[in-house]
Amino acid sequence: MCRWIAYRGETITLEHYVTEPAHSLISQSIHAFESTASMNGDGFGLGWYGEHPEPGLYREVRPAWSDENLRYLCRHIRSHLFFAHVRAATGTPITRPNCHPFACARWLFMHNGFVGNWSRLRRKVEALIPDELYPSRIGTTDSEAVFLAILGAGAKQDPVGATARTLSRLGRMLTEGGNKDALRFTSALADGRDLYAFRFAVNDQSNSLYYRESSQGIVIVSEPLDREHGNWITVPENSVVAARAGKAVEIRPIMQEADAMALADA
Amino acid sequence: MCRWIAYRGETITLEHYVTEPAHSLISQSIHAFESTASMNGDGFGLGWYGEHPEPGLYREVRPAWSDENLRYLCRHIRSHLFFAHVRAATGTPITRPNCHPFACARWLFMHNGFVGNWSRLRRKVEALIPDELYPSRIGTTDSEAVFLAILGAGAKQDPVGATARTLSRLGRMLTEGGNKDALRFTSALADGRDLYAFRFAVNDQSNSLYYRESSQGIVIVSEPLDREHGNWITVPENSVVAARAGKAVEIRPIMQEADAMALADA
Amino acid sequence: MCRWIAYRGETITLEHYVTEPAHSLISQSIHAFESTASMNGDGFGLGWYGEHPEPGLYREVRPAWSDENLRYLCRHIRSHLFFAHVRAATGTPITRPNCHPFACARWLFMHNGFVGNWSRLRRKVEALIPDELYPSRIGTTDSEAVFLAILGAGAKQDPVGATARTLSRLGRMLTEGGNKDALRFTSALADGRDLYAFRFAVNDQSNSLYYRESSQGIVIVSEPLDREHGNWITVPENSVVAARAGKAVEIRPIMQEADAMALADA
Amino acid sequence: MCRWIAYRGETITLEHYVTEPAHSLISQSIHAFESTASMNGDGFGLGWYGEHPEPGLYREVRPAWSDENLRYLCRHIRSHLFFAHVRAATGTPITRPNCHPFACARWLFMHNGFVGNWSRLRRKVEALIPDELYPSRIGTTDSEAVFLAILGAGAKQDPVGATARTLSRLGRMLTEGGNKDALRFTSALADGRDLYAFRFAVNDQSNSLYYRESSQGIVIVSEPLDREHGNWITVPENSVVAARAGKAVEIRPIMQEADAMALADA
Repeated sequence: MCRWIAYRGETITLEHYVTEPAHSLISQSIHAFESTASMNGDGFGLGWYGEHPEPGLYREVRPAWSDENLRYLCRHIRSHLFFAHVRAATGTPITRPNCHPFACARWLFMHNGFVGNWSRLRRKVEALIPDELYPSRIGTTDSEAVFLAILGAGAKQDPVGATARTLSRLGRMLTEGGNKDALRFTSALADGRDLYAFRFAVNDQSNSLYYRESSQGIVIVSEPLDREHGNWITVPENSVVAARAGKAVEIRPIMQEADAMALADA
Repeated sequence: MCRWIAYRGETITLEHYVTEPAHSLISQSIHAFESTASMNGDGFGLGWYGEHPEPGLYREVRPAWSDENLRYLCRHIRSHLFFAHVRAATGTPITRPNCHPFACARWLFMHNGFVGNWSRLRRKVEALIPDELYPSRIGTTDSEAVFLAILGAGAKQDPVGATARTLSRLGRMLTEGGNKDALRFTSALADGRDLYAFRFAVNDQSNSLYYRESSQGIVIVSEPLDREHGNWITVPENSVVAARAGKAVEIRPIMQEADAMALADA
Repeated sequence: MCRWIAYRGETITLEHYVTEPAHSLISQSIHAFESTASMNGDGFGLGWYGEHPEPGLYREVRPAWSDENLRYLCRHIRSHLFFAHVRAATGTPITRPNCHPFACARWLFMHNGFVGNWSRLRRKVEALIPDELYPSRIGTTDSEAVFLAILGAGAKQDPVGATARTLSRLGRMLTEGGNKDALRFTSALADGRDLYAFRFAVNDQSNSLYYRESSQGIVIVSEPLDREHGNWITVPENSVVAARAGKAVEIRPIMQEADAMALADA
Repeated sequence: MCRWIAYRGETITLEHYVTEPAHSLISQSIHAFESTASMNGDGFGLGWYGEHPEPGLYREVRPAWSDENLRYLCRHIRSHLFFAHVRAATGTPITRPNCHPFACARWLFMHNGFVGNWSRLRRKVEALIPDELYPSRIGTTDSEAVFLAILGAGAKQDPVGATARTLSRLGRMLTEGGNKDALRFTSALADGRDLYAFRFAVNDQSNSLYYRESSQGIVIVSEPLDREHGNWITVPENSVVAARAGKAVEIRPIMQEADAMALADA
């Protein structure tokens, strides 16, 4: 299990959330509180939007806590929409292309969770990626495959719908043939304008997800960045947080209850 | 295009061929003579057999010429059958799992060449890998996919036959639908006892391959390790060098001429 | 010998000079024209000034040509004063702290050249670093030691004078006791406002240095970034290029001729 | 604080102690029990002796727990005398030359501890390194400087005496001028034949040290490799464990009590 933060709001330096807070993402890389993997030392990444329509990426296989470059970049890079992620690998190698966030054209995605029984499901999930996006599969993680499947399911027109459809397909794969494999999917998706964060699971509990809004913007996190827990709002299971340009933040169910239950009971 | 060496014979330290000769593999990483890529600085790897039935691997993303670990390992590791490879990447990322050699159970494989139009053919080649070997696909190169396809085609029973069958399937893929994509396949395969080296191409010229035999053993190389070219024998195109335990070295065609021509004319 | 570029002018993205030109710094990392080391694959670095008074740094041990992070950063980081450097190591290990540029408080420095017979002179050069700056010696290169010696010699008050005094001390060390060791010093120094570039040598020829001015700013380079050599002005030996805020670019001798000759004749 | 193991005895594969035990060094890299730094993820290293008189080294900046190369090497490298170390850095950068063990000619050294107030003492400790060994200072750690100082103090003739003399000099530096800086020195030193392990401190408690002897050999560790603590003997403070070829293991004080007290009271 990994830890991540996503921000959308006024343009600020990344250090505000990545390196400076008492329980910053860097300090979570050393010791997370709400995770089965207390340490997240299997690589990390930053993704951010600036003037260029496509996001920037900085991903490294070393732990975040000892990377000098990361501190310099967080101090100097300014963005209105950025992602940061520290990884606790669940089986795939520690390589840069396997570190989050993942980028494809204007899109950024990062994930905390897993597709259970990846050996059984890998080919099936990869088959959800359309041919024209398959060259963008430069790593081997379940997370990257799910990201490209979501893009292939029509994220451009309807990001939440495309994600729900993909989760629905994944849900059926997990349970088909009498299997009861689990999915944990706590993720963030953005296109440079809008930010979406998802909390979902099948046959398992969802990983934690919180957010905090202020006049400056919204920050969405795996776990609070400080001990003032009153400031942080828990995102309910089976929910999407939509932080869109020019609109108030919305929390909605990802799937209708009936659909979600059907998956779990299949 | 990459450069590699393979050795089978008396147990020696790896430095004899990897680091010491005038035109050692390390010096080829800086400047190769017979390659379109004069520099091979996109990672490297060692694979070797010792007392354990499965081979050892050391792979790194840094260039071979500046890796201190490599010099120590070549001085200290002794083996009767080893591979060394310096990489010039042809599109896939510079990660350890994308560096050669590749290992799977008792098998080692390394490759100099490419599958042309990898974007078009990648899924088809990956489909040649049987389900039980797909978890061993930890990287994203064409070379690793072809290796696992060869293992899936029955390398255990008949390494040369399995390789020929796989090349034949690849050949048809390259040329189907009026395509004329190229394959260059100059590779080495071993199981700890026997060593095979292949020189083959479809719709293209084969990459260079040489060998030298002595009372100590056989060394097979992308290009000679010294300027005494008289000592090195050119492996003909469409040929396999078989260096098997207790047998004389044999050079045979990989495919019957008719089959090879059929591929090219398809 | 390394290759580098330094820019001062309007705020632009780093890609304008680091990755985009026909003979960009990245392409020089693969094949430089005017250098004894045609390849510069022993790590690289970026240093730049933004809103924070201290510069940002990104340094990596991998070659510049295959670093995906570098391409993203050059596309997204904007600066009015930046350095980029590709390294060909002359004996010290390939580590991040040994990659250029070096940063200390508001200062940036990078270097192409060497202090000859570093084994003999290392302690003496390190002794030029004042105690309060010695904790900033986090690497082991001759270049970093000279940088800290220059800062210790009063760069804050008089950057050119401090550099000249340090070169003068180095010159005496090289020639004392009947030695005739060489120094090559083609370097850049900046404080966030002003940029200085030096071309100097003792007992040897200076490494090449060029610059080009436009309405946008000045770019100073080890070798031209394109084949239109008419656009590039050669910096004479024993010269400093001073590109200061609000002033016209000036080229001056670093040392009076008499002093320079005295060093060489010592 | 770091964790390490040293072995001397019959020739075995490194995996016996580095990767296989319940609380192996790898598992200590993730979670150590007897250390203020519960995690040791700032690089690691192996050093071993084989047929070559000089030791082999494998050092990496990534954490030990995720390094595939390490598992292959531990399975394949066999040695009668080897060191393994996982690092928790105390201020110096995470580079390969700053990872333990350190090698110089036939000698290997590794260390768990620190020289307190390194900024104040660094130059003084470096001044203990004789000129002819100064080129071997390729990193910037206190540990490497102390190692080279010990070699310079006559380790070849008398390893324990040279270490005691160096510790004595360090002790005076720590306390001179009314300072009360601390030294923790729990280290291992070997020349390919004999193995010495030291547990010592000035103005502080020593870091933990244990050993276990069997007919196969001796293994000396920062903390026990299994929960059967009865099998492990605590090395007393101010002691050296001498495991010399053809001799029984000896435990002796490093300094006479009077000398040790004089240091602390100075």
